[in-house]
Amino acid sequence: MSAQINTTKLNELAQQHDYKALRAELTDMFDIDVAAFIEELPDEEQLLVFRLLTKDQAMNVFAEFSPDVQQHIIKSITDKEISTLIEQLAVDDAVDMLEEMPATLVKRVLKNSSPETRNVINQFLKYPENSAGSIMTAEFTSLRKDITVSDALKRIRRVGEDSETIYNCYVTDDSRHLLGVVTVKRILLAKDNQIIQDLMEEDVISVSTVADREDVANLMDKYDLISLPVVDAENRLVGIVTIDDAVDVIQKEATEDFHKMSTISPNDKPYFKTGIFTMAKNRIFWLLILMISGIITGKILGVYEEAFSVVPLLVTFIPMLTDTGGNAGSQSSTLVIRGMAVGEINMKDLPAVIWKEFRVSFIVAVPLALLNYLRIVLFNPESGRVGLVVSLAMICTVLLANIVGCTLPMIAKLLKADPALMAAPLIATLVDALSLVIYFTIALTLIPALA
Amino acid sequence: MSAQINTTKLNELAQQHDYKALRAELTDMFDIDVAAFIEELPDEEQLLVFRLLTKDQAMNVFAEFSPDVQQHIIKSITDKEISTLIEQLAVDDAVDMLEEMPATLVKRVLKNSSPETRNVINQFLKYPENSAGSIMTAEFTSLRKDITVSDALKRIRRVGEDSETIYNCYVTDDSRHLLGVVTVKRILLAKDNQIIQDLMEEDVISVSTVADREDVANLMDKYDLISLPVVDAENRLVGIVTIDDAVDVIQKEATEDFHKMSTISPNDKPYFKTGIFTMAKNRIFWLLILMISGIITGKILGVYEEAFSVVPLLVTFIPMLTDTGGNAGSQSSTLVIRGMAVGEINMKDLPAVIWKEFRVSFIVAVPLALLNYLRIVLFNPESGRVGLVVSLAMICTVLLANIVGCTLPMIAKLLKADPALMAAPLIATLVDALSLVIYFTIALTLIPALA
Repeated sequence: MSAQINTTKLNELAQQHDYKALRAELTDMFDIDVAAFIEELPDEEQLLVFRLLTKDQAMNVFAEFSPDVQQHIIKSITDKEISTLIEQLAVDDAVDMLEEMPATLVKRVLKNSSPETRNVINQFLKYPENSAGSIMTAEFTSLRKDITVSDALKRIRRVGEDSETIYNCYVTDDSRHLLGVVTVKRILLAKDNQIIQDLMEEDVISVSTVADREDVANLMDKYDLISLPVVDAENRLVGIVTIDDAVDVIQKEATEDFHKMSTISPNDKPYFKTGIFTMAKNRIFWLLILMISGIITGKILGVYEEAFSVVPLLVTFIPMLTDTGGNAGSQSSTLVIRGMAVGEINMKDLPAVIWKEFRVSFIVAVPLALLNYLRIVLFNPESGRVGLVVSLAMICTVLLANIVGCTLPMIAKLLKADPALMAAPLIATLVDALSLVIYFTIALTLIPALA
Repeated sequence: MSAQINTTKLNELAQQHDYKALRAELTDMFDIDVAAFIEELPDEEQLLVFRLLTKDQAMNVFAEFSPDVQQHIIKSITDKEISTLIEQLAVDDAVDMLEEMPATLVKRVLKNSSPETRNVINQFLKYPENSAGSIMTAEFTSLRKDITVSDALKRIRRVGEDSETIYNCYVTDDSRHLLGVVTVKRILLAKDNQIIQDLMEEDVISVSTVADREDVANLMDKYDLISLPVVDAENRLVGIVTIDDAVDVIQKEATEDFHKMSTISPNDKPYFKTGIFTMAKNRIFWLLILMISGIITGKILGVYEEAFSVVPLLVTFIPMLTDTGGNAGSQSSTLVIRGMAVGEINMKDLPAVIWKEFRVSFIVAVPLALLNYLRIVLFNPESGRVGLVVSLAMICTVLLANIVGCTLPMIAKLLKADPALMAAPLIATLVDALSLVIYFTIALTLIPALA
């Protein structure tokens, strides 16, 4: 694998203030690697090294910086430098930056933008968070339908420099209505005098500016698209989403689901960039909620205090029962949550999912129950009744856990809540309480000493 | 969003045997939608409808079928049809198909392939599972370094039809050594008589055929690449990985991690395509292992039977303590597992991670412990000692859970095992046992009645 960076050498050059050699090294590197190198420098050196970069590289590197470093740079540079930077940045990168900035800095940046840039930025800032509008770029290549291949190639050559991707060209009319799409591959393979209209694909997949970014990414994945046009309510082309941004969305959404499913409040900063108090804040809320549920489970256990004073052996099976319930619930909820996230499972599948989970539960639960029964009567031959109670409770717990596990995420989706919140921890707590009630109810019924 | 399919209409046409109209409808649809439609048809109609497609569409649709349907088609068509299909399929699609097929069918397919195709396929079949070689395609565009832009464009036009992507052209010498990369965008923006060598980027990011597919996908994500060259041990270009395949890898790897982290054995079939016995098999193994751990926890609890016969109140705090421990451990292990998967956390960060988790634990645990103490003394004023025991046990449990949660996945990685296996369920079981020992040890020390 290439593209490894020799940070030691770069740091040496920076320490020796050999900026000429450093500049030469940086020019040969990939933008994201330059950004990572500058981010690791002490605050006071970041701007110094950043100013070494050529105008083009500076803009690309700036777009790769984390919001903190972007703010630090913006705070430290002159109004004139801000003006150059903001005019050169792609609109979507500028908007990403402004969304993370305090209002005073946003004002300063907008004050130093040209009226046109300010207009486009303000337009982009209005799109809802996590919408197609919020991840699209305004730099795309559009063609008129009545031009020839050679004219199209001329236009692509002219506007290509500014376009994020030229490989899909979008055909529009005078009012920017989206008429079709034609790939550069198709244009290159055609004859010079062919007309774009005859080459274009009219059945073009597009999304509205307010479409959910996760749906956008899934659509691009499904149809193997490298860019996807975004249209307004009147089907006018306003931007495109490029595949690299869709990949970022896929990664971010997966991370968000991983975190939510482990009761961590979502946070898009990397692990080491999150302060310990923010991290504690992101974790304590759900721990608290689930602790309170745990207290309720404890109260339920308290109701049966008499039972386990008489037969203390009963208590020793509680961890196994509740653990297994929690794990079984976690399995079915994860299958359903992930299945919905990638579009394999839809709301209409609820009955089919429940039926499947019901059958799988039995196949899983019966061997586990049998094994427990055998183990209990083998080691405590006088405790056949307890063995029966534990086995029956095991079957009921696994069944309940799987049904609750698959149903809750789908109900959440129905109520427009995030299915990922209905994951293992919440389901485990719920199943804990229910399985204890089942366990002791069966015990009170079957063990004469408790009656 | 466009590209919605009217399945009802298609089904009606199929039922009315109006194959001419059906064919017309299918021709206008996207390949993946045609594949999805045919897959839903009864077995005996699948081949019939598949044969309606044009040769080009048939090949693309075939590549989108699930392995089951591919096998069904291959079993049902003639040797001649197999021969046409296999020569037209992209090598990587053919290999994907053969990897899932029983040996007798593989033999039949290879027997009907041309010697060259058979050679390439055999070559591809040798690449390890989940390697760059296993996801790459052999259809790429290569250019010589000494040709002009206009010659390059002529060559792109000639070979473009067969190339998966033409947007990155790879520059190679006579022995196919990789020398550089040049984008079609750059070629189009250059003058006709410029030489490719002067346009190409020499510092080209490439991977070896045996590189892990997850690393390949992360690399393409990081550097925003739409294709990535794959080279053999002698740096000879043998294929490219395209972004659509990398996106599939990202989705599959995330799903695999979700499943593993919920103790479901990995399985790359969608939810509804997995039989209930396979599904039960994928789930029961870990349930069994964790049930046995639960039994051990129960045994530990049994050791303290005397203690909770004397102070039964102690039992009622067990679910809350073990739940909170499990949840805290799940939070830290998820952060670390996902952090490692996306490359944010590396092995060298272990001390930094432990130190961070240690501090976060205290900020999280102290309020939870205080709240518990207050609650206990408020509702049971005579149980100040029990309150103290529960609070101290809470702090120790959260601390322990976070440290175990962040350490185990990293140790797994160190031992070349999958970090995702060291997730919530396993950690919860471990923390359960340890926290019970801590809880009762503190109780035996602090509560005089138990001494």
